[in-house]
Amino acid sequence: MYKYETTIKLHETDAAGLLFFSHQFKLMHDAYESLLEKSGFGFAELIRNKDFFLPIIHAEADYKKPLFVGDRIIIEVEVENIGTTSFTFSYKLTVKNHDLVGLGKTVHVTIDKKTRQKIPLPSPLRDAITKLQ
Amino acid sequence: MYKYETTIKLHETDAAGLLFFSHQFKLMHDAYESLLEKSGFGFAELIRNKDFFLPIIHAEADYKKPLFVGDRIIIEVEVENIGTTSFTFSYKLTVKNHDLVGLGKTVHVTIDKKTRQKIPLPSPLRDAITKLQ
Amino acid sequence: MYKYETTIKLHETDAAGLLFFSHQFKLMHDAYESLLEKSGFGFAELIRNKDFFLPIIHAEADYKKPLFVGDRIIIEVEVENIGTTSFTFSYKLTVKNHDLVGLGKTVHVTIDKKTRQKIPLPSPLRDAITKLQ
Amino acid sequence: MYKYETTIKLHETDAAGLLFFSHQFKLMHDAYESLLEKSGFGFAELIRNKDFFLPIIHAEADYKKPLFVGDRIIIEVEVENIGTTSFTFSYKLTVKNHDLVGLGKTVHVTIDKKTRQKIPLPSPLRDAITKLQ
Repeated sequence: MYKYETTIKLHETDAAGLLFFSHQFKLMHDAYESLLEKSGFGFAELIRNKDFFLPIIHAEADYKKPLFVGDRIIIEVEVENIGTTSFTFSYKLTVKNHDLVGLGKTVHVTIDKKTRQKIPLPSPLRDAITKLQ
Repeated sequence: MYKYETTIKLHETDAAGLLFFSHQFKLMHDAYESLLEKSGFGFAELIRNKDFFLPIIHAEADYKKPLFVGDRIIIEVEVENIGTTSFTFSYKLTVKNHDLVGLGKTVHVTIDKKTRQKIPLPSPLRDAITKLQ
Repeated sequence: MYKYETTIKLHETDAAGLLFFSHQFKLMHDAYESLLEKSGFGFAELIRNKDFFLPIIHAEADYKKPLFVGDRIIIEVEVENIGTTSFTFSYKLTVKNHDLVGLGKTVHVTIDKKTRQKIPLPSPLRDAITKLQ
Repeated sequence: MYKYETTIKLHETDAAGLLFFSHQFKLMHDAYESLLEKSGFGFAELIRNKDFFLPIIHAEADYKKPLFVGDRIIIEVEVENIGTTSFTFSYKLTVKNHDLVGLGKTVHVTIDKKTRQKIPLPSPLRDAITKLQ
């Protein structure tokens, strides 16, 4: 499990006064980027030096409680599944007093940069993700 | 069914060269806003003059093909379900030659602005959504 | 002069109820992308097939009146200056009844993709921009 | 002077591979929000409990060096000017090795929430901003 902390910014809210729903996905991805960076697979490295991509083929989220500008949240990221050519991460968002505010999931596949075809998870990436379990 | 057309903007792509996944949700919401506007329930009206909100409690998306800057897409919005206190919209994204690029879904509930409690869909809204079916 | 029309989306507003200021820059860029596309220099083409980039080295905006979700706006883009290795575009935002709501400016330079050095504006681009004057 | 640290996220870059220009303004505002929060004028408080707004009437930025996903940046915020009904903040963005990557400025006015007219800076806000100088 990986923990990521952040604060809801004004530009993540909308005129109805709360977090705009698509920004929960953005925040989940921020947590995932931070996790990858810590695991040695930061996006700068992935984009410049690796021969594979990790596109998202499915994403979902549940919204349990409203989030306001200035709310300090914790996003817990867990490895839900590791397949041959894909992996699934799940996300749990809480505010500091441990109230659940949202849930989410992203499913990623490994794609060869040149052929754009699915490939098995490269071993170092598989190892890094397995370690998070 | 409601059709909405738009073009992928540079700021909707990321350094991996394609549409950033959370922006598919944003585009789905743009289509939904346009539909509500046409149905007499535009967000300006909802925020200023109505005593209810329509928060999203669940959202999901599938990504079928990559989208690039400049791609012209069509989003078809359909009413998938109308419940007592909620409704579900589904979204189908295609590029101009009719290739499917993405799917999505949003589930909305009707909330009283003051009490923040669920309320039955107000009749005029129910009627407007029913007409779209 | 080039005219671009768009509608303020919910996700472009914030909890203070109005357009979040940085989104005026985003909208200006949307207008600029549309203009480039019409001139044969769309971003897909620039990114994939050209050997130069057009990074922005300066941007500014003035905010004259608040913008709400659903507001229909027109952005007029004008070529303010064409230099040897740079060009400047100015932007005027009005709502449908012709009220001025914002002004803006972006300064672009031509950079060789490989050397990352400034280069003179390629002739076809210079010609395309000159035609807009 | 106030220091704010952050990391460039994937969704802040675009298909040209670098930070999308309007996101520098967004990051500047994130720093400003953090500063206001520390000064007792966080946006949650401003929106819910204060009778004034602080809209931006002018913003500008210079871009000195490209920023990539994963780059760790520091934003230094300084009070450039305090007027009767307005104040100006300036921003300096550097990467960790102290290279200057960007500059910016935002001009804010104090507006009465009800009358939407300019009002003198409320004393507690003036005091808080003055302390930052």
